[in-house]
Amino acid sequence: MLAPEKFSGVLTPVITPFNEDLSVNSDRLIAQCRWIISQDVGLAIFGTNSEANSLSIKEKIKLLDKLVESGIDPKKMMPGTGCCSLFETIELTTHAINLGVSGSLLLPPFYYKGVSDEGLYASYSEIIERIGSSNFRIYLYNIPPVSNIPISINLIDRLIKNYPNTVVGIKDSSGDWGNTKDMLDQKWDDFRVFVGSETFLLNNMRNGGSGCISATANVNPAAIRHLYQSWDNENAPNYQDKLDEVRNIFQEFPMIPALKAAAAIYSNDREWNRVRPPLLSLNKKQFEKLESNLREIKFSMPGLSKN
Amino acid sequence: MLAPEKFSGVLTPVITPFNEDLSVNSDRLIAQCRWIISQDVGLAIFGTNSEANSLSIKEKIKLLDKLVESGIDPKKMMPGTGCCSLFETIELTTHAINLGVSGSLLLPPFYYKGVSDEGLYASYSEIIERIGSSNFRIYLYNIPPVSNIPISINLIDRLIKNYPNTVVGIKDSSGDWGNTKDMLDQKWDDFRVFVGSETFLLNNMRNGGSGCISATANVNPAAIRHLYQSWDNENAPNYQDKLDEVRNIFQEFPMIPALKAAAAIYSNDREWNRVRPPLLSLNKKQFEKLESNLREIKFSMPGLSKN
Repeated sequence: MLAPEKFSGVLTPVITPFNEDLSVNSDRLIAQCRWIISQDVGLAIFGTNSEANSLSIKEKIKLLDKLVESGIDPKKMMPGTGCCSLFETIELTTHAINLGVSGSLLLPPFYYKGVSDEGLYASYSEIIERIGSSNFRIYLYNIPPVSNIPISINLIDRLIKNYPNTVVGIKDSSGDWGNTKDMLDQKWDDFRVFVGSETFLLNNMRNGGSGCISATANVNPAAIRHLYQSWDNENAPNYQDKLDEVRNIFQEFPMIPALKAAAAIYSNDREWNRVRPPLLSLNKKQFEKLESNLREIKFSMPGLSKN
Repeated sequence: MLAPEKFSGVLTPVITPFNEDLSVNSDRLIAQCRWIISQDVGLAIFGTNSEANSLSIKEKIKLLDKLVESGIDPKKMMPGTGCCSLFETIELTTHAINLGVSGSLLLPPFYYKGVSDEGLYASYSEIIERIGSSNFRIYLYNIPPVSNIPISINLIDRLIKNYPNTVVGIKDSSGDWGNTKDMLDQKWDDFRVFVGSETFLLNNMRNGGSGCISATANVNPAAIRHLYQSWDNENAPNYQDKLDEVRNIFQEFPMIPALKAAAAIYSNDREWNRVRPPLLSLNKKQFEKLESNLREIKFSMPGLSKN
């Protein structure tokens, strides 16, 4: 087996559809993944916006199997496999590697707060040494607004130095462009820096970044992909403005419920409009406001069909 | 089966011993549980200070089985069974109920931040309805410094009103006596309020509270239990001062590694001095400082032996 190629471009934490009893609807997820791939966007399944931390490890393993069995190319997948528990991270990641995914988006262990860089290094190091696979590619996941575990430049630097073939990139969801820029300024050799929102995509590309992994690429994949491909075109700032217009509409609402509402609206499949607690679906007023705001800017999700 | 009695008194999140390969040493855990019970302190296994969130759900289920098989009374157990994922919480809690535990200490789902009371209510409600057991007793777990999910008075009130036989108590680890006092002032009918540190034990008892669930009851159980039993004795403030003196020594260090170091010192079993990443054991200097500080106050852990 050849070592997986590194990612670049646009990926999305694919939203996870639930049945009325809150079980995962894998058929609908498979259809959504196919649509996203058709838009030339990669599958960061089990991300924050996939409600991955509302799924059990059993569900995640089963879903990975079903996606691959259904013919979806594991090479296009960067599943989120970081759990609170070291051994669950190892189990889920190993399963994903064995299925042939190209990389894992690795949340740090996120329960304990105020942990040291030394402790985080020990955690990554245990994971890497125990998995011991030359096919293992880690994309670190910096999302302090949710995890409360910032991943420092020093920690990244140490990981890259000691595991250059394994620690190959990062998703920076700090929401702070200065933080992303700091990473880019390190000029780590072929280290892939993804911004966690397309808001920073043009800036990222202009400074040597590799793309974005964005929630709203669930609903606006083609346009985000277009900016990625055309970032050095003179019209790129206009493309960025257009992306921001869409993103800003979603940011008026709780993001995950709003993404699912949009999927429901544009696929004409209200079954999409369901989340697991502790999240809540948009209420009727929010749903209608989202719909009308999107209509106002003539937003569409071309090629999306009822799954 | 009779419905479990409600807890009162002193419990401790039992520290979890690890082997050199970081697997759980269940024999050592069983011995520790026996010692704690011999001090008349209950077993809040799988608490924050048990490194429960560094254990996999499989490990927790297996450990519960082993503890009960070893003859430890499940009635003395209040395992932490709240996970990020609804279905894992249900699986683990159901397993514990079937083994006959007297209650579960339930962390709220702690990954997503800024979730609403409505969403948290929906989460607890799903758990309670799906488990559907009259033997299910929830002790809510308010630990915002770690979970970042505060449990509000309004939420507790709604849960008690709708599930009076299930939602029977809370552990308040806010570290804010004013917050605990607010709960006590509600005068909820036979609702058991435990403080998360013996620092507040005397205050809690004087205001109608039910005891404490404290990390340092791993090392100082008898003295804490003594204050619980003698809180209306005129010497109680002196007992409280003495407890605070010990607690303060531990609070100079990262709590979990310090508890394990103390277990190592007093059981003369250095194997105790091991944590799972991302936590780190005390370094040599810290270890020696803890040892000397404890020696200075003539601290001991009577009846503890090498497991």
